Amino acid sequence: MTIPAARPTSIAGTVLTGSAIPEHAKSDRSGHRAAGQPEVLVRAATVDDVRRAVEFATTAGLSVVVRGAGTGLAGGASAGAGSLILDVSGLDRILRIAEADEFAVVEAGVSGAALDAAAARAGLRYAPDPASVAISTIGGNIATNAGGLRCVKYGVTGDSVLGLSVVLADGRLVHTGRRTAKGVAGLDLTSLFTGSEGTLGVIVSATVRLQPIPVRTVTIAAYFDEVEQAATATAAVLAARVRPAMLELLDAASLREAQDLAGAGGDSAGAFVVAQTDGFGADAEAEIVESTFARFTSRVRVGTDPAAANELLAIRRAALPALERHGRVLIEDIAVPRSRIAEAVRRITEIATGHDSRICTFGHAGDGNLHPIIVVPEHDPAALGRAEAAADEIFATALHLGGTITGEHGVGVLKRRWLERELGPDGLRVQRAVRRALDPDGLFNPGKMF
Amino acid sequence: MTIPAARPTSIAGTVLTGSAIPEHAKSDRSGHRAAGQPEVLVRAATVDDVRRAVEFATTAGLSVVVRGAGTGLAGGASAGAGSLILDVSGLDRILRIAEADEFAVVEAGVSGAALDAAAARAGLRYAPDPASVAISTIGGNIATNAGGLRCVKYGVTGDSVLGLSVVLADGRLVHTGRRTAKGVAGLDLTSLFTGSEGTLGVIVSATVRLQPIPVRTVTIAAYFDEVEQAATATAAVLAARVRPAMLELLDAASLREAQDLAGAGGDSAGAFVVAQTDGFGADAEAEIVESTFARFTSRVRVGTDPAAANELLAIRRAALPALERHGRVLIEDIAVPRSRIAEAVRRITEIATGHDSRICTFGHAGDGNLHPIIVVPEHDPAALGRAEAAADEIFATALHLGGTITGEHGVGVLKRRWLERELGPDGLRVQRAVRRALDPDGLFNPGKMF
Repeated sequence: MTIPAARPTSIAGTVLTGSAIPEHAKSDRSGHRAAGQPEVLVRAATVDDVRRAVEFATTAGLSVVVRGAGTGLAGGASAGAGSLILDVSGLDRILRIAEADEFAVVEAGVSGAALDAAAARAGLRYAPDPASVAISTIGGNIATNAGGLRCVKYGVTGDSVLGLSVVLADGRLVHTGRRTAKGVAGLDLTSLFTGSEGTLGVIVSATVRLQPIPVRTVTIAAYFDEVEQAATATAAVLAARVRPAMLELLDAASLREAQDLAGAGGDSAGAFVVAQTDGFGADAEAEIVESTFARFTSRVRVGTDPAAANELLAIRRAALPALERHGRVLIEDIAVPRSRIAEAVRRITEIATGHDSRICTFGHAGDGNLHPIIVVPEHDPAALGRAEAAADEIFATALHLGGTITGEHGVGVLKRRWLERELGPDGLRVQRAVRRALDPDGLFNPGKMF
Repeated sequence: MTIPAARPTSIAGTVLTGSAIPEHAKSDRSGHRAAGQPEVLVRAATVDDVRRAVEFATTAGLSVVVRGAGTGLAGGASAGAGSLILDVSGLDRILRIAEADEFAVVEAGVSGAALDAAAARAGLRYAPDPASVAISTIGGNIATNAGGLRCVKYGVTGDSVLGLSVVLADGRLVHTGRRTAKGVAGLDLTSLFTGSEGTLGVIVSATVRLQPIPVRTVTIAAYFDEVEQAATATAAVLAARVRPAMLELLDAASLREAQDLAGAGGDSAGAFVVAQTDGFGADAEAEIVESTFARFTSRVRVGTDPAAANELLAIRRAALPALERHGRVLIEDIAVPRSRIAEAVRRITEIATGHDSRICTFGHAGDGNLHPIIVVPEHDPAALGRAEAAADEIFATALHLGGTITGEHGVGVLKRRWLERELGPDGLRVQRAVRRALDPDGLFNPGKMF
């Protein structure tokens, strides 16, 4: 394609074309590569840059692939032939921290960590904490409705989003939602854009809820002989009316890998669980967590200061990086009703055996959200095929157990062919109708999600 | 209109036509009456009844006005000429209580109280508690995204909705959402239907989140000399990182009326605040609430058993019924950022004076959600005009303070002409586009919200 002569005046921001577009801007952390080469990369620094890029793409017949930090795990930001990559990570201003009203207004390119640091100066925090919080952008978190470790008490990203500013396919900027705790004026378009994976418009800024930093946090970790015991113990904690701020599980294989990377040593076990309680009831809740775990194992540890907490959490945090040392990994993301966790983990083990694949599973036990990580050794050319067949069976298992193919990472490219199986043909038809209403010509992220 | 000959076989459920349709089925608690007479009333008992009614309405050229218990406050269920009233209150089965996974599946006509009672047998509760919880239906609560007293900690109705089954304009039944704690497969149509006020489809059943019944609840009430003190005290409670389960405020006039009706006697004061704390930190949080209130007033009372709590809450609950004794009331529902509550209440008092109207204000201080109740004496023919002018100024005040025209009751008919002022022309255009995508011919609740 030849960029029309109008380019220099009609696009603003930093503009790169053709071979000047760096490789890393064409994909995300999923490892997925789109076919062909994107035509243009625009690094926007203002909302006006975004609007002009969208208008240019329409005129030039290009599709628009929005990207933030490129930390997506489903291929939602992969860009190929005929596309304009619109990088909004330069929209990185924190516009307001409203201390008394507990909200912030931020541009889409602000990282969760940067917002959290600014909020902390007002005694507040931004609750959502995807594993990528240090580097991923709020805009990307909203586009995927990202989860994280604290969801079991504080909800997913969408639960903290009050309102959005979005550039639509016709180049107009619209504002959704509100700055108040409650509000029901009109259809909830804020939630519609949240999790839309770049298919409805370009999120340029957001009003997000902040919350007080908890007065106290206690961390409890336990090693179990069997994953069934761990699942039963986490269910017992929840049945005891405790609302942990975090309730994470690693299976035996993930634990071994994580301990190895973290240099943590520690027990070998059939499963590892780490929980946090916080707030005014943190100690009372932690006592129940500890005594509940103690019914199933003698290996329980409690940390009340940040250093001890970090040590116990380090194992959980090391799980994915440890597995990534062994080659490419397929990071799956099913969620099942919590009562089916043990069954899901057991079934995943069988699937691994059946497909001669190495699968390690960890995840957010409190939400029933599991990440089976399928290792694809680079020296084995047939491994990817076996891994994909295993992933297919994992998705089928999730649906069979009453769950979903994606708890927090999104559909992107990787789970697209499974979406209809989860939603059904009528459900998918309605989704497409809503999409067409906002983006009739399929300008935004075609081939993603749908 | 003549009902087509096909009616007896094509509609199912109880069917009434013309003058056989009772008056109370034509409106809701807003007092709004639509012009003209509805043509048909269908009392559906099954999903199939709903589908057949929708298909019949399409064939007969009627619009569909869905109703549950008729407790709406914005005229969303008022039905006039050319309409088919579809009463779904007969869809009243609790289909499932999933104890370990903490969710329920209910038909749309189940009342919040009935669900809560069923959940209680499993040690769980349904958190949303609109004032109408004893009589309003879950379907209606979802259609309006209803609020209530516990929102400040537990969120609005939508925060408890995991998935929906909806009959669309073409008669098809679609399922949205999931039964797991998290899930991001596709656009969030569950949130789109929640709060759509009957304009997108007929909600026939819902999967809703349940939560453990708190281990302990403490109630704290206080009388303040001035509403500014009360607003400052509630803000100080939240700034102290307390997350009360309830934080309610009555102005002087509401308090007098409520005390009179409740026969509670009690102090006269410039404002009354009642708070609840719950969960494992309830006592620690209650102590902070009590000591914070005590910085502003010596009149603080604490109740820890249900009887004492009910006594303190009775005043709050009596506020609206007390005012309804004086004639018709316009029940307004603005929300402002919490830091602007005192300013809003002060401004409402000025508006009342300016329009020679009696306005009593109470509401959910923790959410910044205020209900200015404008009394319209029946013996004064000009009073309604003055009341409506006052309401207009109240809406303008809410927007001026960075708030919304409706925190929890919805737009319905009553606030329709204010919607564009809040959303802007582009915002409203997008809303209409989404509506058309799901209901291209405007079958559902035309003239409501938009």
